[in-house]
Amino acid sequence: MTSHNPLPLSVAIQGEAGAFSHQAAKQMFGDGHELVVTRTFDDLFEAVVSGRAHRAVVPVENTLAGSVQGNLDRILRHSLHVGAETRVRIRLSVLASPGQTLSGVRAAASHPVALQQCQQFFRDHPEIEPVAVYDTAGSVRGLMAGGSGYQAAIGSSLAAELYGAETLAEEIEDDPENYTRFFALARDPNPTSPPRPKTSLAFVVPHEPGSLHRALGIFAERGIDLTKLESRPIPGRPWEYRFFIDVRGTPEGTLRESMRELETLTREFHVLGSYSEFLEAG
Amino acid sequence: MTSHNPLPLSVAIQGEAGAFSHQAAKQMFGDGHELVVTRTFDDLFEAVVSGRAHRAVVPVENTLAGSVQGNLDRILRHSLHVGAETRVRIRLSVLASPGQTLSGVRAAASHPVALQQCQQFFRDHPEIEPVAVYDTAGSVRGLMAGGSGYQAAIGSSLAAELYGAETLAEEIEDDPENYTRFFALARDPNPTSPPRPKTSLAFVVPHEPGSLHRALGIFAERGIDLTKLESRPIPGRPWEYRFFIDVRGTPEGTLRESMRELETLTREFHVLGSYSEFLEAG
Repeated sequence: MTSHNPLPLSVAIQGEAGAFSHQAAKQMFGDGHELVVTRTFDDLFEAVVSGRAHRAVVPVENTLAGSVQGNLDRILRHSLHVGAETRVRIRLSVLASPGQTLSGVRAAASHPVALQQCQQFFRDHPEIEPVAVYDTAGSVRGLMAGGSGYQAAIGSSLAAELYGAETLAEEIEDDPENYTRFFALARDPNPTSPPRPKTSLAFVVPHEPGSLHRALGIFAERGIDLTKLESRPIPGRPWEYRFFIDVRGTPEGTLRESMRELETLTREFHVLGSYSEFLEAG
Repeated sequence: MTSHNPLPLSVAIQGEAGAFSHQAAKQMFGDGHELVVTRTFDDLFEAVVSGRAHRAVVPVENTLAGSVQGNLDRILRHSLHVGAETRVRIRLSVLASPGQTLSGVRAAASHPVALQQCQQFFRDHPEIEPVAVYDTAGSVRGLMAGGSGYQAAIGSSLAAELYGAETLAEEIEDDPENYTRFFALARDPNPTSPPRPKTSLAFVVPHEPGSLHRALGIFAERGIDLTKLESRPIPGRPWEYRFFIDVRGTPEGTLRESMRELETLTREFHVLGSYSEFLEAG
């Protein structure tokens, strides 16, 4: 994808180096990319809209928490294109400076959501106080920079590697079935050739009984698999919803007729992109 | 509903008196109920599960932010029943102690989400610093208790009334199409007689092409209106989803046959409740 480009591909994430978004960026773009870190999701989208980054890696859903609210809306609002997807298993480790032992840890820092996903660890170690900080990877960076007031941080193995932390305990998350799905976004449609087995669409159906059923029937009658359906409120139109769906196929291939038909049945219709999944290494 | 009950109905909310949940409780239960305040949504559900409160008033969706994540899951997990719904328009006011003028305000406190919904107000008043606190109604209570370090709080007119604050500016929210929908929950099914025009259901379809389409077809072919559809991940079963739908009708009336048929097509099937909508007063 970038072999003809003399500059390295720049990839923006929300959060710091070592975040799970960074892991997702590595799964989709390898190690040769230049990482652009941003503070908020709005900053992240701005980075790719303004051209400061070639790609944005954006979490869209988590198997425990559900949709990462607002990110599908942002893709549409900024007319960005989905070019790839990947899933990262959220594995949390207790990280510390070299030489630190687990029994000497009195406080462990991480993002509140990460802390909440390690309740069993804190029950097993009542002597360790959880400390909420802004960012999971940031807690590791802060720890290794020294003077943080906590002796351990809870983060990814990538953060351990990047900041030179030692791992005191691994996979301490309560639920191993904890995955986050990420999209890679760009200003232009996906330039890669097929196979791009999945397509994400957004549409609004007329408000009348059976309208969603008719829209989904277009795929059902052709045996096309709907892998995801999500509804989001439409800002400024209370109690009206936009549907975001993922289906197997591409607009140039098996979806060609379905898309044409869907457009005639809907009040708004957008193709977010067609893409392949990049698997977690190892 | 409580006319034969010698005790006042106790109604739990998340947050403090004067919160928008309190407004919702008043719309559904009038002024005669006893308010039970809880700190988190888990505490709120616990209050009604344990019997400490007769009802819980729970936000389920907002027209700008979308689903209040986790609350539909909690209804199902605790086998609670939806007995009523209402919608509250989120109107935000600048509140202060009697005698305070707007030009003397240097800091205004509220919950971060409320502050974020009043960006135009803070642009128009660059001399006023927004201060994030735990709770919208709590910011008003804290202000009126004195010694808070801020001269104004942003909250509801109900909070103004309850804590004796004066209103310096009204409806300062950026978007007037900002409504939150609330359910009233109980341990037992809704005992009120019809009309209960709406029913909320939850179900899981087999993972095969067309399964959701077939499930929705049950309602479409009878002309039954689907007013809401939401998907939520199933914890422990990555990339599987449970659908929550709202339809017009009751299981005893127009929905009778559809429900029987839906149950045969789904892997899990739950009725959350049938209920009426209580309208905002005034």
